[in-house]
Amino acid sequence: MPSYKLTYFDVRGLAEASRLLFHLAGVEFEDHRVAFGGSEWEKLKEKTPFGQMPVLSVDGFEIPQSAAILRYLAKKFGFAGKTPEEQAWADAIVDQFKDFFGQFRQLIIAQRSGKSVEEIEKVKKEVVIPARESYFKILNGLLNKSKSGFLVGDGITFADLVIAENIETLEKFGFFNPSEESKLDGLRKKVYTHPNIKGYVASRPESQI
Amino acid sequence: MPSYKLTYFDVRGLAEASRLLFHLAGVEFEDHRVAFGGSEWEKLKEKTPFGQMPVLSVDGFEIPQSAAILRYLAKKFGFAGKTPEEQAWADAIVDQFKDFFGQFRQLIIAQRSGKSVEEIEKVKKEVVIPARESYFKILNGLLNKSKSGFLVGDGITFADLVIAENIETLEKFGFFNPSEESKLDGLRKKVYTHPNIKGYVASRPESQI
Repeated sequence: MPSYKLTYFDVRGLAEASRLLFHLAGVEFEDHRVAFGGSEWEKLKEKTPFGQMPVLSVDGFEIPQSAAILRYLAKKFGFAGKTPEEQAWADAIVDQFKDFFGQFRQLIIAQRSGKSVEEIEKVKKEVVIPARESYFKILNGLLNKSKSGFLVGDGITFADLVIAENIETLEKFGFFNPSEESKLDGLRKKVYTHPNIKGYVASRPESQI
Repeated sequence: MPSYKLTYFDVRGLAEASRLLFHLAGVEFEDHRVAFGGSEWEKLKEKTPFGQMPVLSVDGFEIPQSAAILRYLAKKFGFAGKTPEEQAWADAIVDQFKDFFGQFRQLIIAQRSGKSVEEIEKVKKEVVIPARESYFKILNGLLNKSKSGFLVGDGITFADLVIAENIETLEKFGFFNPSEESKLDGLRKKVYTHPNIKGYVASRPESQI
């Protein structure tokens, strides 16, 4: 087994689905966490392939970009989908998340850059809430047709990990109400109570994002 | 060989890299083009998997999301990268494009929703130009290290098609100057002059996006 090191900030964020995947697969990895705004990241930034994190190192070979890392590991560990068609659907769901997150990110940027309450409310109302509506519609459509309760095929894939984590973040930001979204809440529960995952989820560091 | 049908608007946009890939691989496909704002799209929208296009149909089995479609085809046709590590890097580049495009899209939305000249200039200056700077830096870094002139390994992959198409769009929007970006312009030329691709590029419908 190669030596895996996953480097990211000390939050769930864009690395958490890969961390969950390591636990799901029962594969050891170094969970290297870098403090926000500290000197370590200042020094590290220029050495990363794309000037950003997460970065996965596999015996020293580096891979950037969260979804690329996750897909690489999912294929290695057998959680990428069982057929080329299942793989394409898992990819499509993760791409849909990325599209949604690109819009949700506008809210995070507005909050962090000190925009006014009115401007932040405008981003919520005009960008995040309509984007969430179509995103949840797509996900619920998939879960309504699913016999396994997972998003693709009859077992857990990396797409389930991405969506479960995103639901967690949306709840922490006030954009997810479990009582209104029972299917999505059920998916998160299925992921978080998986025997290989639940111990990690119970003990992991708390973070809003 | 299965029967492929690619359905998208009558522009390059998010389907063009897949169209180029069919030509590159020499695989026949139905290039189904739907008019913007017409009644066909109104009727079709509810029938698509995610309420959006492009959609690929493979003997009637549908796959949504542009990058998922492209990756699925690239794996089938042998243009996804030669090793799991090359595949991860091709994925990472396409994800980087998606991150950039999520920001570029804010400009398209501002223009189409009738924002003022000042607001559009603000999006250009505060969002698109900084995003382009880090995106081009990443791509140039890869091309500077490339021996083949392609982004990953020693041959053309789906990542090259995505980036070549995006350069074309950026030029049409005034965000790409070939004389300032010779490496990126060289990549576009390598893709567009490929023997399997150049005939299609010369004859395809003209569109800004």
